[in-house]
Amino acid sequence: MGLVAEQEPKTVVQYVLSRLKDHGLTDIFGVPGDYVYPVLDAIIDDPDIAWRGNCNELNAGYAADGYARIRGLGVYCQTYGSELGSYLALAGAYGERSPVIMITGYPSTAQQASRQAWHHMLGSHRYDLFVDMAEELTVARAILTPDNCIEEFERVLAAVLYHQKPGLLAFPSDLAHAPITSDTPDAIPLADPTSDPAALRQAVDHIAEVLSGVSPTCIVPGLLVQRLGLIALATKLVDATNLPFTTPYQDATTLDETHPNYMGIWQGQFANPAIDDYVNRCAYVLALSPDRHFFNTGFNTLTFPQERSINVNAHHVRVGRAVYDNVEMKDVLEALIDRLPRWEDQGAPNHVTPYTQASGSGDDPIDAGDPLYARLQAFLRPGDIVVGDPSSPALAATTMQKPKDCVFESQALAASIGWGTPAALGCAVAAPDRRVVIIAGDGAHQIAAQEIGQFYKFGLKPVFIVVNNDGYLVERYTCRDPESSYNDLPKWRYHQLPAAFGCEDWYCVRVETTAELDAALAEVNRTARAAYIEVVTDRYSMPPGAEKLFELTRPKFGQTFTWEEWISAFRAGKNIAAPG
Amino acid sequence: MGLVAEQEPKTVVQYVLSRLKDHGLTDIFGVPGDYVYPVLDAIIDDPDIAWRGNCNELNAGYAADGYARIRGLGVYCQTYGSELGSYLALAGAYGERSPVIMITGYPSTAQQASRQAWHHMLGSHRYDLFVDMAEELTVARAILTPDNCIEEFERVLAAVLYHQKPGLLAFPSDLAHAPITSDTPDAIPLADPTSDPAALRQAVDHIAEVLSGVSPTCIVPGLLVQRLGLIALATKLVDATNLPFTTPYQDATTLDETHPNYMGIWQGQFANPAIDDYVNRCAYVLALSPDRHFFNTGFNTLTFPQERSINVNAHHVRVGRAVYDNVEMKDVLEALIDRLPRWEDQGAPNHVTPYTQASGSGDDPIDAGDPLYARLQAFLRPGDIVVGDPSSPALAATTMQKPKDCVFESQALAASIGWGTPAALGCAVAAPDRRVVIIAGDGAHQIAAQEIGQFYKFGLKPVFIVVNNDGYLVERYTCRDPESSYNDLPKWRYHQLPAAFGCEDWYCVRVETTAELDAALAEVNRTARAAYIEVVTDRYSMPPGAEKLFELTRPKFGQTFTWEEWISAFRAGKNIAAPG
Repeated sequence: MGLVAEQEPKTVVQYVLSRLKDHGLTDIFGVPGDYVYPVLDAIIDDPDIAWRGNCNELNAGYAADGYARIRGLGVYCQTYGSELGSYLALAGAYGERSPVIMITGYPSTAQQASRQAWHHMLGSHRYDLFVDMAEELTVARAILTPDNCIEEFERVLAAVLYHQKPGLLAFPSDLAHAPITSDTPDAIPLADPTSDPAALRQAVDHIAEVLSGVSPTCIVPGLLVQRLGLIALATKLVDATNLPFTTPYQDATTLDETHPNYMGIWQGQFANPAIDDYVNRCAYVLALSPDRHFFNTGFNTLTFPQERSINVNAHHVRVGRAVYDNVEMKDVLEALIDRLPRWEDQGAPNHVTPYTQASGSGDDPIDAGDPLYARLQAFLRPGDIVVGDPSSPALAATTMQKPKDCVFESQALAASIGWGTPAALGCAVAAPDRRVVIIAGDGAHQIAAQEIGQFYKFGLKPVFIVVNNDGYLVERYTCRDPESSYNDLPKWRYHQLPAAFGCEDWYCVRVETTAELDAALAEVNRTARAAYIEVVTDRYSMPPGAEKLFELTRPKFGQTFTWEEWISAFRAGKNIAAPG
Repeated sequence: MGLVAEQEPKTVVQYVLSRLKDHGLTDIFGVPGDYVYPVLDAIIDDPDIAWRGNCNELNAGYAADGYARIRGLGVYCQTYGSELGSYLALAGAYGERSPVIMITGYPSTAQQASRQAWHHMLGSHRYDLFVDMAEELTVARAILTPDNCIEEFERVLAAVLYHQKPGLLAFPSDLAHAPITSDTPDAIPLADPTSDPAALRQAVDHIAEVLSGVSPTCIVPGLLVQRLGLIALATKLVDATNLPFTTPYQDATTLDETHPNYMGIWQGQFANPAIDDYVNRCAYVLALSPDRHFFNTGFNTLTFPQERSINVNAHHVRVGRAVYDNVEMKDVLEALIDRLPRWEDQGAPNHVTPYTQASGSGDDPIDAGDPLYARLQAFLRPGDIVVGDPSSPALAATTMQKPKDCVFESQALAASIGWGTPAALGCAVAAPDRRVVIIAGDGAHQIAAQEIGQFYKFGLKPVFIVVNNDGYLVERYTCRDPESSYNDLPKWRYHQLPAAFGCEDWYCVRVETTAELDAALAEVNRTARAAYIEVVTDRYSMPPGAEKLFELTRPKFGQTFTWEEWISAFRAGKNIAAPG
């Protein structure tokens, strides 16, 4: 590629920025600080990269995560030590396979040599401590110097893209602006991974053999299809085979949900059980690497045996007990398009969603079940990026039927409440021409709400739907006693937040009745203004999944009452769950 | 002590809570989550412990830090994995020697045995991963079971109190409510550390010998004096010896600043240079364990040689090159009170502060130098707890002369901006009868401002002084180009925050002139209402230390212009600092 010769980057940080730009990066998130000034100054000096400051490090990490999901790579930076503030964001990106690079400014070589206790430290002289601490949260880490810059940067970048998980780059502050002295190895940039031809052939043969004559069956696309840029190819496989497809929670909208073969979200018996019933009738299914964890298995209600799931992973294939290594998903999809037969109609469920009845009207209180989510479902428009802040509204929103080219993003493994607002900021910066709709519960929203101000600062026009049910609702129906004070929140006036955070000309409204909700949603779709709708619901108005989750979690407290008994007692102001 | 027999704690978590109560704990901070329900339920069931929920994990950790400084022990808890969100708080507590215990709810033994990927994880099956990751941020960690509960809890508690640094307790969710089965070792609770009599005698002899006839000299109390409950004893030593004393930045208000022998804050040549000049004339000084790091040495302008500092540490003494181990500070202070002579007046500086002139009036803009801080200095009342959120206002506020029994808290080693608001919440919960005054810069405040709502929820009445100078001011005068966009913030309407966060009947005001500031401060002192004063100052109105910090940091950019040239150019809208 001769990239170094062409671009003649002079300094360590300039080299890194030039390579990040090669991968389409135009924005870097973060929080400033003195160890990282040289990196920040290089960003400011670069007309092709915009600095996107965040309120704090956690929010910066989440924003980079959101950006990475839309653009294929996200970067944030902060000063030495402050990186600890974003570890939860790294953990989230790790679990969702989001290719995020954390940049951190490090003490200068002179500071390190002094062996003094500088600021933002623990007081020890182990300057590389934080690089080591991030080991389990990242797939590669490097401290960049003029000597090692090219090899080490390329190694980290290649690992991040190969694993679709976070990496870490540390810049000692005096070296960031030093001219690079390392030679350009011929192997830089590292070659994309390629398939072992024999393994590929055998894997495809094996898949074709196992699927031969299997009916019913289906395809289960996972989010790596999107991460690896293979949406078109996977869609072509669906079209060629005519197989129905379903995606677990975390993998929602991997393929367009308006596709005629789309079944709906597969969450075991937790939601859309007709889909689970269908899959359970399949002798085998063709899975494109969905992850199997608590949220993605409908809270362990998805019992389909893994050995009946042919799994095409990013870089290997598993068929029964056979594993074929060094086989790229792209190559497998291409081969299967030619190789697999076309199935007749399988009688699979089609476009299943729990939300059909936008019932209620006028002064009816807003019912946070079908009535709310059927309305939100109708509110969405093609191309929207919908961000579900991990919370009961996100759990409910996942199973909405999304319009064409709509993307739904949430966080399912780390499942950290509060991720939504900053992640939505990242999505909005990544795709400023698309509408970003954030659906959040109040408890989740309080974690990182201050990032709202950045939307306005960056000229973005998000739509916030914040469900105010006066507490941590998921916890109310999964803990011992819903009325425990630990489920209570400060009573924010949510719709006043944007103004306090400096957002001007936003449409901010608090709605308490169904008519007010209808009017607000219509107003948002009528105008192009940024909006913040505080949707007030009853303390125990629950999305459809709540009852199921209640049933799954109640037994551990040894309580025998039913959902109906529980909810009616609570609505009458009685507590049948309290101890003794 | 027979504590187990007396109190008959039945379960793992009840045992732990009972022991925390033995140490005066009446409040626990945190964020709820399902793995930690059993701990939360035990807290709710305990009439003597109040649950203090926070908006997020970082804020919970900071709140526990603030609480620990006032009460001698602080505890917060959150669910599995979410602990990563508070690592920055642990690092801060570590650096400030704040005895904080982080409690985290862990997967049940059944969940662990299943080897499945549950929520709030990275996807691996290393359930103890996060205990290991916290190794460098804590002095002891334990996963508590019925079998090991007593020994392991006592080990962690003893280490936290011995080192005055954080510890970690993990509760597998099914074991938290299990009855403890471990016997009560005779050695529980672990005995307080005691001095080796010979080492103590030799150390005191050595100190007395070295200080004999030394004049001038002084005492330098460090914050461990406060942490170890030795304020009265150290004050007695000052009274007995009649020596003047000075405290570094981090150690401000360790002893009462109205004491006649108080010199002022020692920050090398950075602030109060008369004190540094005095100390440099001392052949030896008697230091009570102040830490030596960047902020505590006036940004390395404090050059007094460590070997001329006799250092009485928590558990050892150093005199010159001689180290005496197993010598407790308490015993050394008691011995020195009898042993050291009484000095005549040393001619030391007395009650030095940069703030003397509350100049300006009427429509004058608010000058964030002497005029602002002299006013804040006069505003403080005896007994106030003043919290400086690491930022330029905190740097300036440290050197205010504080009234009697006033405590100043900040964060000097980790120096993480944003610590102030949640830490102040912790202080206020710890001492609800004292007034808590938070002094913060706007950039720092944006990190964790949402914790304001908790003050109202808990019925507390803090006074916020938020200096709005439209950006990260410390960065403006230490980075290459003050007008770099990375120094800009979203333009919050700060004084509207309390209302948006649900605080009712607060006195919230934005002041832009000196007369408005005077009126606002008078109004706050006239009433007992909670207050939030947004103090608007010019973008480049700086506290006295700014020029010094500018001079210390400018050379690294190879720029030769002076402070006067720089500041006047900027005020004229020119940028003489921009590159090339």
